[in-house]
Amino acid sequence: MAEVSVLQYELVYNAFSFAIATMGAATLFFWLGRSQVSDRYKTAITITGLVTAIALYHYVRILQSWDASYDVVNGQIAVTGIAFNHAYRYVDWLLTVPLLLVELILVMGLSRSETWSKGVRLGLLAAIMVVLGYPGEISGDPTTRWVWWALAMIPFAWIVYELFVGLGEAIAKQPADVRGLVDTARWLTVISWSFYPVVFVFPMIGLTGGTAATAVEIGYTVADIVAKAVFGVVIYTIAVRKSAAEHGTVVATRTGVPTPAL
Amino acid sequence: MAEVSVLQYELVYNAFSFAIATMGAATLFFWLGRSQVSDRYKTAITITGLVTAIALYHYVRILQSWDASYDVVNGQIAVTGIAFNHAYRYVDWLLTVPLLLVELILVMGLSRSETWSKGVRLGLLAAIMVVLGYPGEISGDPTTRWVWWALAMIPFAWIVYELFVGLGEAIAKQPADVRGLVDTARWLTVISWSFYPVVFVFPMIGLTGGTAATAVEIGYTVADIVAKAVFGVVIYTIAVRKSAAEHGTVVATRTGVPTPAL
Repeated sequence: MAEVSVLQYELVYNAFSFAIATMGAATLFFWLGRSQVSDRYKTAITITGLVTAIALYHYVRILQSWDASYDVVNGQIAVTGIAFNHAYRYVDWLLTVPLLLVELILVMGLSRSETWSKGVRLGLLAAIMVVLGYPGEISGDPTTRWVWWALAMIPFAWIVYELFVGLGEAIAKQPADVRGLVDTARWLTVISWSFYPVVFVFPMIGLTGGTAATAVEIGYTVADIVAKAVFGVVIYTIAVRKSAAEHGTVVATRTGVPTPAL
Repeated sequence: MAEVSVLQYELVYNAFSFAIATMGAATLFFWLGRSQVSDRYKTAITITGLVTAIALYHYVRILQSWDASYDVVNGQIAVTGIAFNHAYRYVDWLLTVPLLLVELILVMGLSRSETWSKGVRLGLLAAIMVVLGYPGEISGDPTTRWVWWALAMIPFAWIVYELFVGLGEAIAKQPADVRGLVDTARWLTVISWSFYPVVFVFPMIGLTGGTAATAVEIGYTVADIVAKAVFGVVIYTIAVRKSAAEHGTVVATRTGVPTPAL
């Protein structure tokens, strides 16, 4: 275990607690709001909430594992000898990263065959990317880490290509008032996901010890919140707007309010 | 840790338990009542309940942390050496304070562009205010505390200005039977939020020890209940009245009850 200071221990502890509150709140927001989108987009919102619910479960476990790794009494910190379980993050990503791409595909409302082909291809690429990262994560040898890092970057590059080239035509066909949001969702994915391979490289370029461990844990936590909860709010807003547009006249006649607030 | 008496320890413990009960009850009230407001206001009520749900989570943790900090056996109190985690309050505020302003904006039913611009501006100002308060909170040095206090007061003053000047026109356009309530919501925000910078100053003006620690914890708890649960009831009442007014004739014809009970 890295020797962290009391302040670093508490900072990471509070970041994990923040993630628990955020993922829990996001899950409730998505599932309560599910009734506000049309049937066509309900599955996308169900999955958006599943992603944050799975992350909630893992952050509860991650916090417990962090708490078990250190004892803080009278302002002194001691390593307990119980190892912090890094695998929770990879188990989480193996489930949630493919689902994040599936929610993006679903909210785009493509044809049934396109939804299946793009969903399966992107989902598999994401799962392979996470699986290839793990052998590097648990290795202390820089060369081994670089090899697996490079291998995991192949499916990552392919996903970025699919998002910008493969989905380009489908995005151009989105209704005008959500096209910008779909583009935002795509960029949020690429930018927040780029954070992970950068953090992975920290120990290989000599960043070790308590400060590096603190930066890694807080960095991954912030990236998870952006990639799952913030991304989810964008997906939810797209679904609300498209639902309103598709039911346009009905909603307008009944309530006199043609556009939703979001 | 402050040396509190057994009575003070129990008073604070019971105040935290009261907050757990209040926040839990408020959350259930808002989410059960969500079906009684029209689609246009459902997101506002979802968020109103999220704020109290997030506070519920943090008060459970705050009570656990308080409990772990002291041992009371045979009428004697002893400090355990485990520090009380003050950060839970800031982590809570970082999430809930922006959301409180967002629920006020959403229930006003502004245009989509105004909702976004005012929601983002007020939400960011609120988050910056909380972040600027934290370095002062964890410092024992009065000068450092005053500097961060003064910095956090800048976004606070800006929020008050936005609520009274920026939203003035929008409030004047609210339907007559909710205009007073929207004004109440605005005043509740300013008055309950003013409590926090006052409590923050306690240790800087010589109020320390068990009595001051007790006053701070109970003060923050009462302010949280007013700012989140009581404020939420006002928001909920506005949403119910506006929903009834917008469906006016339909409700009147079908049920013979043209006005809601609230």
